[in-house]
Amino acid sequence: MANLFASIPAKIDAEVFEALLTRANVRIERILSHGQSTPEQTWYAQDEHEWVAVLAGCGILQFEDGTEVKLCKGDHHNIPAHVKHRVKWTDPDTVTIWLAVFYPA
Amino acid sequence: MANLFASIPAKIDAEVFEALLTRANVRIERILSHGQSTPEQTWYAQDEHEWVAVLAGCGILQFEDGTEVKLCKGDHHNIPAHVKHRVKWTDPDTVTIWLAVFYPA
Repeated sequence: MANLFASIPAKIDAEVFEALLTRANVRIERILSHGQSTPEQTWYAQDEHEWVAVLAGCGILQFEDGTEVKLCKGDHHNIPAHVKHRVKWTDPDTVTIWLAVFYPA
Repeated sequence: MANLFASIPAKIDAEVFEALLTRANVRIERILSHGQSTPEQTWYAQDEHEWVAVLAGCGILQFEDGTEVKLCKGDHHNIPAHVKHRVKWTDPDTVTIWLAVFYPA
């Protein structure tokens, strides 16, 4: 996937995860959503820190402590390792493009 | 700087470097250019690897071996540590927004 805004499938039935760079000390992914969310009561909690930016569309991150962060085009947020989070909502009307940088704790 | 596409100065007389995230194991920067280039015969060659993406505008990276890589909106490129490179050209007609992720070699 040579361009962050290209190769968007016409139909996204499930979130699409694509590795852009995989190295020992960093992992960069593009994630495409189109209305998907993480199943209820399901949490991500990884050993790495994650810096995430939204390049198009909008999504809402929900944290186990109840806080929510809405990210739209250009917004970014850092999620520390082991912090439980899920995607509560993504825009059903357009593709949301996430750029995620995972780095060692 | 809360949004990657916001807080663009009306006039950019010199490249603008802004830290988005600074941690022991990663550094993420936004860089704004508007026609600027690295001075002739001047090279960047850092101890960290650098993954760079262009989010708006266009720029040309030049490497010491003579190769050039043109990056426009959405294009990304990985620059290994110690590889000498410079920005040969950026679009004089619009602001180029670079997102750079520096990670340990």
